[in-house]
Amino acid sequence: MASTDSLKLGDYLFTRLRQLGVNSIFGVPGDYNLRLLDYVVPSGLHWVGNCNELNAAYAADGYARLNGLSALVTTFGVGELSAANGIAGAYAERSAVVHIVGTPPRALQSSRALMHHTFSDGEYRRFAAMSTHITAAQTNVMDSVTAPDQIDWILQQALIHCRPVYLEIPDDMGDVLVSAANLKTALRVPSVPSAPHEPKVVARILERVYGAKKPVIFVDGESRALGILDQLDALIKATGWPTWTTVYGKGLVNEQLPNVYGLYAAGFGDQPAKEYFESADLVLTFGPHYSDTNSYFYTTVPKSAAAISFKDSTIQIENDIFRDLSASDVLAQLLQTLDSTRLVKATGPPKVEITTSDIQGSDIIAQNNFYRLLNPLFREGDIILTETGTASYGGRSFKLPPNSRLFGAVTWLSIGFMLPATLGAALAKRELNKATGGKNQTVLIIGDGSIQMTAQEISVMIKEKLDILIFIINNEGYTIERVIHGRNQAYNDVPFWRHTQALTYFGADEEHIKNSTFQAWTCGELQEVLKNEQVHSGSGVRIVEVFMEREDVQGPLLYLLNKQIAEEKEQEQPGQ
Amino acid sequence: MASTDSLKLGDYLFTRLRQLGVNSIFGVPGDYNLRLLDYVVPSGLHWVGNCNELNAAYAADGYARLNGLSALVTTFGVGELSAANGIAGAYAERSAVVHIVGTPPRALQSSRALMHHTFSDGEYRRFAAMSTHITAAQTNVMDSVTAPDQIDWILQQALIHCRPVYLEIPDDMGDVLVSAANLKTALRVPSVPSAPHEPKVVARILERVYGAKKPVIFVDGESRALGILDQLDALIKATGWPTWTTVYGKGLVNEQLPNVYGLYAAGFGDQPAKEYFESADLVLTFGPHYSDTNSYFYTTVPKSAAAISFKDSTIQIENDIFRDLSASDVLAQLLQTLDSTRLVKATGPPKVEITTSDIQGSDIIAQNNFYRLLNPLFREGDIILTETGTASYGGRSFKLPPNSRLFGAVTWLSIGFMLPATLGAALAKRELNKATGGKNQTVLIIGDGSIQMTAQEISVMIKEKLDILIFIINNEGYTIERVIHGRNQAYNDVPFWRHTQALTYFGADEEHIKNSTFQAWTCGELQEVLKNEQVHSGSGVRIVEVFMEREDVQGPLLYLLNKQIAEEKEQEQPGQ
Repeated sequence: MASTDSLKLGDYLFTRLRQLGVNSIFGVPGDYNLRLLDYVVPSGLHWVGNCNELNAAYAADGYARLNGLSALVTTFGVGELSAANGIAGAYAERSAVVHIVGTPPRALQSSRALMHHTFSDGEYRRFAAMSTHITAAQTNVMDSVTAPDQIDWILQQALIHCRPVYLEIPDDMGDVLVSAANLKTALRVPSVPSAPHEPKVVARILERVYGAKKPVIFVDGESRALGILDQLDALIKATGWPTWTTVYGKGLVNEQLPNVYGLYAAGFGDQPAKEYFESADLVLTFGPHYSDTNSYFYTTVPKSAAAISFKDSTIQIENDIFRDLSASDVLAQLLQTLDSTRLVKATGPPKVEITTSDIQGSDIIAQNNFYRLLNPLFREGDIILTETGTASYGGRSFKLPPNSRLFGAVTWLSIGFMLPATLGAALAKRELNKATGGKNQTVLIIGDGSIQMTAQEISVMIKEKLDILIFIINNEGYTIERVIHGRNQAYNDVPFWRHTQALTYFGADEEHIKNSTFQAWTCGELQEVLKNEQVHSGSGVRIVEVFMEREDVQGPLLYLLNKQIAEEKEQEQPGQ
Repeated sequence: MASTDSLKLGDYLFTRLRQLGVNSIFGVPGDYNLRLLDYVVPSGLHWVGNCNELNAAYAADGYARLNGLSALVTTFGVGELSAANGIAGAYAERSAVVHIVGTPPRALQSSRALMHHTFSDGEYRRFAAMSTHITAAQTNVMDSVTAPDQIDWILQQALIHCRPVYLEIPDDMGDVLVSAANLKTALRVPSVPSAPHEPKVVARILERVYGAKKPVIFVDGESRALGILDQLDALIKATGWPTWTTVYGKGLVNEQLPNVYGLYAAGFGDQPAKEYFESADLVLTFGPHYSDTNSYFYTTVPKSAAAISFKDSTIQIENDIFRDLSASDVLAQLLQTLDSTRLVKATGPPKVEITTSDIQGSDIIAQNNFYRLLNPLFREGDIILTETGTASYGGRSFKLPPNSRLFGAVTWLSIGFMLPATLGAALAKRELNKATGGKNQTVLIIGDGSIQMTAQEISVMIKEKLDILIFIINNEGYTIERVIHGRNQAYNDVPFWRHTQALTYFGADEEHIKNSTFQAWTCGELQEVLKNEQVHSGSGVRIVEVFMEREDVQGPLLYLLNKQIAEEKEQEQPGQ
C-alpha cells in the first residue's frame, strides 16, 4: 500500500547522512551514479568532486577521522575498484566511511546484459564480492520496501565498527519512493547490554588502580573508535599519572598537561621514559593496536602482568579476557567511583623539552632540526598531517597544542594517502568550526615521493578554498624505501618535479600564487619563511618546499640505514 | 639434492619475462618488493618507476596491447589494491599483464605477525582472494622446489587467456635458489588439439563462403587475443570483401585497403554501410565482444542467420556452437583451401571520404572539425590513443595509416586509463622499433576531466624521454557525463587547471618547455599548430590544448544530449 509518508530513496539516504552529521560528500561522477548525485545538493550536502576515486576515498577517510562519519560516491567497477586501497586503509585504521556505489539499473543486472564497466560476461557480483574483504558490512539496495532498513542497518554498522561499509544503489533506485517512517527516529549505535560479570571486572580494575605504585596510562589509537577520548581526558586529569601514547594515539590526548609525555618509543626514544614504563606495575592501556609500525616492532607493548587493556567489547586484565563489555561503560563507572585520595601520586621521569638553541641559521635543513623549527607554528585546534616516510617519523616528536590532531603512519602506510586526507580533514574541521566560529590551520608535511601519488588533489583544495599549508620535503626520492633496502638503487628515485609551480598548474588565482610558494635550504631561510604572515596566518593553499639530504633519517630509520651500510661492507669484504 | 644448475628466483622470473619479449617492467617500490627489484636491472629489464600503482597498471596494459605481454610490480595490500582497477581493465579488454606482488616474508605470514600493510589481524590472504575476481589465474610462490613450475604456469596462463594474472612473491623468496632446468626450454602456449569435428566445420564454413552473394568481414577486438591479425590481413586481401571493424577492432586492420571501410556504427553511422551490412548473407565475424559500448547498444551485432563467429576456442555458425577449436588453425585451413575464383566479387557501398574543404580558419574548434584536421598528422606505424569521452567517439572517424594502432573506449571505460596507457604503448613501440630502426609518433587525445585522474604520469613520460604528442580537449568538465545526465549539474564540473604549465611542473628541460606547449581556439590556430615542426616531427612530450564548447558532442552522445534536453522541456511543461 503506497503511503503519502514517502520520499525518494536518494533523499532518504542523504537525509540520514545529514542526520548523522555528514555535511560534505566526496566522489567522482560516473554514468551509474549520476541520478543519485542529483539528490546530493538538495539534501543540503556539499558535493566535493575529487580528481579520482582513490583520492576521494582518502579524503573521505580524513574527513571521518575528525567528523566520525563520512561518505563517498563512486561508480560500478572502474570507480569503486580505484577506491579499494583507500577503503582498505579506512578499515585498517578505523574510519567510518560509507562507500556508496552506483551500479547498473536493476533491469540490466537481472537480464545479465553485457554492459560497459563489466567484463562483458553477464556477471555483476564480482566487485561486491571483492568489497567483503575490505569493509565491515555490505548491502545491495534492490527493493523499495526493504531499502530504508537496509540503509539504516549499513550506516549503523559503519558507526558500530568505526570501519568502512559498502552500499550498492542501482542507477534506477535513487528515484524510487520509499517509506519515510524511519526518519522520525534518530539512528543510534545500540548500547552494549550490561554483562553480569561487569561489576566484578570494575572491582578488579579498581583494586589494581588503588594498589598501583608505579602506574602508567597508555593511549593507543583505537581509543578514538571506542569513543572514550573525553573520558580519557578526565582520567588523565583525575589521576595525574604519567601518560604516553603510541604513534596511532598521538594527538588524541592533551600533550600540554603536565603528566602527558607524548609518544612512547621504548628503545627508540628517551631512556628514562623507557625505564619508567618498563618498570611500571600497572599500564592502563586504551585502544591497543599492536602492528609492528605502531609499536616499534612490538617493543612498546606493555607486559601482560602490568597491563589492563580496554578494547572493542573486551577488557583484558593480565591474561584474563572479559568479553561483551563496553570500554566506555566500564570507564564511566571507574571515573564515577574513583576516590582520588586512594591513588598513588606518581611522578614520572623528567620531561624532554624541545629546544632550538643549538640550531644555527646557516645549518642546512635536516630531520634533526626541521620539526623543532616547525613546532611553534602549531596552535590550539590545528590539524597536523605527517605522511608515511621521514615526515611521519619526524612528527612524532612534536609537542602538540590542546585539541589539535595529528595524522601519522600507523599500519596501512599507503603513501599518497596524506594529501587527500588533508583535504578531507581540513574540510571537516572547517565545518566543525562553523558552530564555534573557530579558525584553525591544517598543516601537511609530505615527501617528494609521496606527493607524486596524489598531487592533483591540490586542485580540489584550491577549488574548495581551504586554508592548507603544505611542507614538501625534497630529498630526491623515496628515502624511507632507500633506508629499508636499495639505498643507491634507481628504483627508489622519482621523476624531477618543480613543486613551486604546483599552485600555477592547479589553478590558484594569480594574486594568490605570488605570495604563497616558498623554498628553503637552510634553517635561517626556513625561519624567515615561518615568519611570513601568509605562512603562519594566511589563507588558501600555501606550499613550502624544503630540501634535505637523500639519506638524512633519524630513529628507527637510521637504525635500518646503518644496518644496510654494515651489510654492504660485509659483502665488499667477503673474506674477512 | 642441491644442483649446481640453479639460480636465484628473482633471476629466474625476470629471465622468463625477457625470454617472452618483455623488455621493460612497471611498478612502484614498496618495502615488501625491494629485494625482488634488485633483480630487475641485472636481468636486462628496464625499470619504469611510475608515480602510483594505478598508473603502473594502466601503463602495463598499454604496453601489453602492443607487446603481447607485460609486467608490473607492486607491494602487498596498499600497492596491489591501488592497481586493482587497472588489472580489472586488462581483464575486460584482454591484456596479458603479469601482476607481481611483493608480499611479507614467509616467516611473518606463517606466524600471522601483525604487520603494516595488513589489517593488523594476522590475516594475509584477503588481497589474494580479491585478485581471483579480476585475474585469469593466481599463484603464491612459497617453495623453492615448486617455484619454477609455478612461474612458468602463471606466465602461460597470461598468454593463453590474454588476460592479467596474479603472482605473489614473498619478500624472502627473491634470493632463494631454484632450479634453472626449465629455462632451457622456451615457454610456449600449448596448441589446441585438432578436434574430430574440425574438418566438418571447415567444410561448412567454405560452403557458406563459396555460396555467399553479399558477404562482409567484420573484425572485432578480441581478434588480437586470438592471434589472428596476420591471417585476417591475408583474408581481407584474398577475398577483397567489404570489411568493417567494431570500436574495439578499429586499428587492427589496414584501413588503407580499398575494401576496408573502417568502423561500422549501424544507425549511428553511414546509411549505405548500414543497408549493406544488414542485408549481407554472410558476416564472417572475428573476435566478437558485444558490450553495449562496443556494439552501439547491440545494433551492430550481425544477425545469427548470416554470422559465422570465430571466438576463443569456439566457432559459431548460425546457432550451432562448435567447441574446442582454434580460430587460428581453422583460419589457416580456410586460407590454404580457399579458391578465390569461387568467391563472389563483392562491391561494397560507396566509401565516405574525409574532406576538410568546408572548414574555415575562423571556425571555432569543434567535434565536427577537430578530428578531420588532425587526421593528416598520422603516419604509418603510429599509435593513436583516444580517451573515453568525446575523444574516443571522435577518433572513430579517423582513417588510419597502415600498421598504426588505435586505442579507444571499448568496455571498461575507466577514465584516466589512456594517459598512462600512452606511456606504456609508446615505450613498447620504441622497443619494437629498435629491431627495425623505425620511428613513430604516439598521439594521445584526452579531455580535461580525464587528464586530472592520472596527470602525474606525464612526468614519467618526460623522464623516459618518450616522444608523445598530447591533445587536451578543454571543454570545462566531464562532457560525456553531462550528455548522459546532469548537463547543468555542478558534479560534472572539474577544477580549473593551467595545462600549459604541465611540462614545467612535471620537470621537462627549460629548453624543451619553450617550444612544446600550444593552445588553439579556432581551426586556423589549430592548423598553424599542426604545421609546427616540433608538433608533427618533434621529440619529447608536447602538449596542445584545444578549446571546445561544453556541450559540443556528436553521434550517440548527441542523441543522449537531445534526449536529456527533451526530458527537461517535458518537466518544465508538466501540463502539456
